[in-house]
Amino acid sequence: MTQWIRYRTDTGRTGFGTLGGDRIDEYEGDLFDGARPTGVTTALSDVVPLAPCTPSKIVALWNNFRALAAKLEKQVPAHPLFLIKPASSLAGPDQRIERPAGYGGRIAFEGELGIVIGKRARNVPPAETPGHIFGYTCVNDVTAVDVMNEDPNFTQWCRAKGHDTFGCLGPAISTDLDWRAARVVTRVDGAERQNYPLSDMVFSPAELVSLVSHDMTLLPGDVIACGTSLGVGSIRDGSTVEISIAGIGSLVNRL
Amino acid sequence: MTQWIRYRTDTGRTGFGTLGGDRIDEYEGDLFDGARPTGVTTALSDVVPLAPCTPSKIVALWNNFRALAAKLEKQVPAHPLFLIKPASSLAGPDQRIERPAGYGGRIAFEGELGIVIGKRARNVPPAETPGHIFGYTCVNDVTAVDVMNEDPNFTQWCRAKGHDTFGCLGPAISTDLDWRAARVVTRVDGAERQNYPLSDMVFSPAELVSLVSHDMTLLPGDVIACGTSLGVGSIRDGSTVEISIAGIGSLVNRL
Repeated sequence: MTQWIRYRTDTGRTGFGTLGGDRIDEYEGDLFDGARPTGVTTALSDVVPLAPCTPSKIVALWNNFRALAAKLEKQVPAHPLFLIKPASSLAGPDQRIERPAGYGGRIAFEGELGIVIGKRARNVPPAETPGHIFGYTCVNDVTAVDVMNEDPNFTQWCRAKGHDTFGCLGPAISTDLDWRAARVVTRVDGAERQNYPLSDMVFSPAELVSLVSHDMTLLPGDVIACGTSLGVGSIRDGSTVEISIAGIGSLVNRL
Repeated sequence: MTQWIRYRTDTGRTGFGTLGGDRIDEYEGDLFDGARPTGVTTALSDVVPLAPCTPSKIVALWNNFRALAAKLEKQVPAHPLFLIKPASSLAGPDQRIERPAGYGGRIAFEGELGIVIGKRARNVPPAETPGHIFGYTCVNDVTAVDVMNEDPNFTQWCRAKGHDTFGCLGPAISTDLDWRAARVVTRVDGAERQNYPLSDMVFSPAELVSLVSHDMTLLPGDVIACGTSLGVGSIRDGSTVEISIAGIGSLVNRL
């Protein structure tokens, strides 16, 4: 299993490479198209981690876990239901989640699996999706809960979930995750709040990539956030949220 | 009034410049940051027009005209209501609108004014927005109507409006439009279907840029589509839609 990370060095340069213990083997070129090792090795402790990719869009699913659908008494959907979080919402590991200016309402965490696209995907048949998935990362799909239903005529998904720093990704992209065996574990200030199996997903990663690629072209580095399950809740200013998936690592962000 | 266009030359090169009659004065560098004239002039008829900018996101308003709100019997909103059309939905003048694979339902046109951001905008006070607006363009906010309410629990704004080629922009960016005096006129196969005054907007361009910039960072080239008014409707395969705003020009796309 290879784990790719992006980082900023102490000279301000952005780099990327593979993680081995506490060392990074640096690469150059295009992460998604023939990246080459530079031969340079750096200590993880000497760099500032960045989001492992820079998506042009984050396609964020709603109602994609059977347990949450049952709790909400919603039917499981016939097609993936999603909104778009813009590129400007991106945040990396350890980056602060910023409360939007003038917003004093509730802010919620949602721990999720993220699919990282490796190859341009348009109208991809289900059997061909493995070639389009580069790997998997952790997502915190942060949400300004009180924005969502502020207007009685229009649910404000994009605004509530699209604020700067509300699309937390990382810490790494894992290329060989056995997602069927993995769980998403979310802790707030150390206390476990979510612990759900990815095998409960309505649409699998392969189905999501195929179906969404029929709705819009997915580009290398784009992320599909697979939706969350039971246990989402609010966080206070100063709280730290940790989303962990074994094989990927722990994504930690403080509000 | 300056009108900026982007185009592809017969050698496949992408260029941009200002329009004067049927001639283009070519520029080089960054359209939004110190573009310089090259001294080269080209005939408009010798190039293929492209969308005049390449937004990282299109922020598309809903319910932003009083006449349409009254007709739909909806209250005028207290804050701009929007969804996000991804960069992958972009289409330029004369480009074909493509019916999504496997979708046989209705496709609607929506003629709109587009605000083109010229300078990074984050938490911009209303009085400072003029410095952040580069100019204005025409938008056809194409919509797969039957996708929108396919699921009873989730209105699929981003999917219905986010398909490839559903974000038509052009033909030019006009830097000095008197939007208060302008009208949006939409013709389908030559027959007028919309003709509404921009002065009927709920949130003005300055208010939109300020308010949306408090929700998310707007980047140079990003577009705010100001929403539509009365007269939207469906188009048949093979129909041609023309969105015209005097001072900008006519954006023509065929389904």
